Amino acid sequence: MLQLYIGNKNYSSWSMRPWVLLREAGIPFEEVALRFDSFEPGSRFKQALQAVCPTGKVPVLVDGGITVWDTLAIAEYVAERHPDKHLWPQDPAARAQARSVTAEMHSGFGALRSACPMNIEAHLPETGALLWRDRPGVRADVQRLVEMWGALLREHGGPLLFGSQFTIADAFFAPVCMRLRTYALPVPEPIAAYVEHVASRPGVKAWIDAALAEQDFLDFEEPYRLGR
Amino acid sequence: MLQLYIGNKNYSSWSMRPWVLLREAGIPFEEVALRFDSFEPGSRFKQALQAVCPTGKVPVLVDGGITVWDTLAIAEYVAERHPDKHLWPQDPAARAQARSVTAEMHSGFGALRSACPMNIEAHLPETGALLWRDRPGVRADVQRLVEMWGALLREHGGPLLFGSQFTIADAFFAPVCMRLRTYALPVPEPIAAYVEHVASRPGVKAWIDAALAEQDFLDFEEPYRLGR
Repeated sequence: MLQLYIGNKNYSSWSMRPWVLLREAGIPFEEVALRFDSFEPGSRFKQALQAVCPTGKVPVLVDGGITVWDTLAIAEYVAERHPDKHLWPQDPAARAQARSVTAEMHSGFGALRSACPMNIEAHLPETGALLWRDRPGVRADVQRLVEMWGALLREHGGPLLFGSQFTIADAFFAPVCMRLRTYALPVPEPIAAYVEHVASRPGVKAWIDAALAEQDFLDFEEPYRLGR
Repeated sequence: MLQLYIGNKNYSSWSMRPWVLLREAGIPFEEVALRFDSFEPGSRFKQALQAVCPTGKVPVLVDGGITVWDTLAIAEYVAERHPDKHLWPQDPAARAQARSVTAEMHSGFGALRSACPMNIEAHLPETGALLWRDRPGVRADVQRLVEMWGALLREHGGPLLFGSQFTIADAFFAPVCMRLRTYALPVPEPIAAYVEHVASRPGVKAWIDAALAEQDFLDFEEPYRLGR
């Protein structure tokens, strides 16, 4: 069976992507949860990963003798291994579009990612309002999301980015939906509806519920809180 | 015919990847070269791209009615469109490995990328020595490259990362090879041999020659030079 190594569910945005993708697709896998005790070389986290993967980062997918790391490579690997699951849209033009927005997420949105780290259990609307006021990069990243998602929802009819099928693109933006909620960043109605729809999907909700049950406060993941 | 929108060949590391991939694979395409006059909204560069692509960034691939942006999405699109070209390794385990290192490049190596911008015509060994002394992040990124490339060259026999076939992984690391040369960053012999082999490939050499012929000095791309 596939094994997926992940970090803390409350914090690990990269881990969330393949996990919700596999769950939404109904592909069975064994979860190997590694706590982010620290990212120093001697930490338990790094030691546990060292034997599995050369980068020492999560997520990692192990499929028998094959090890795949980096979220996007995992997504392409699973899509290729399960063609019947249609993890990318079937239409070639839509598939090219889905790969474009997914790869754009993979290498971009740096301002949003660094200013608004994923923290599912936290509710930080005041922090979000200050970031919105003071960080043009955050506003520009959200503006790009609003344009991108708005265009895709109009073109493909929603409720997901490429119609009714939960694709790799939705999995890649799921952690962004979590950030928009935690920091209460202002988005127009169709975008807010997409965010809530993603959060309500069974695979995403299962991740959120597990994140809320974790109750593990890691100060190096918490630029805006002193405690829970 | 495929159209590939690119930026300045001397500077645009993201543009270099799909261009050398298509050339090495012998896939015909029309090049649409856009000069990096500036990245401000009103610039010619941004205006020319605006009609083509929502991100306003190069590279962009246009295939009739299909527009693909972001380098990795372009690579997957072309690989899927030309299965006979074997742009990914044919063996599933090697393909998973190739996708992992390519995706790792796509989202990582931030210290090397920001400290050592691609500048093919420049020769900056002193700058490189200072960066090597003062930036642990640059040393860590190069250390990871040395481990990754070393392991792949040993496992697959070289001279490229996955044997004798030029794959998407080699295309993704081609701009890194350019950086290692420009800044003369220290790497062990097998790695230096790989860098020189990549630089000597016909598709890569064609890009380098065109970059050298460009002779276009853009100060906002030049943190280390006042002129040519």
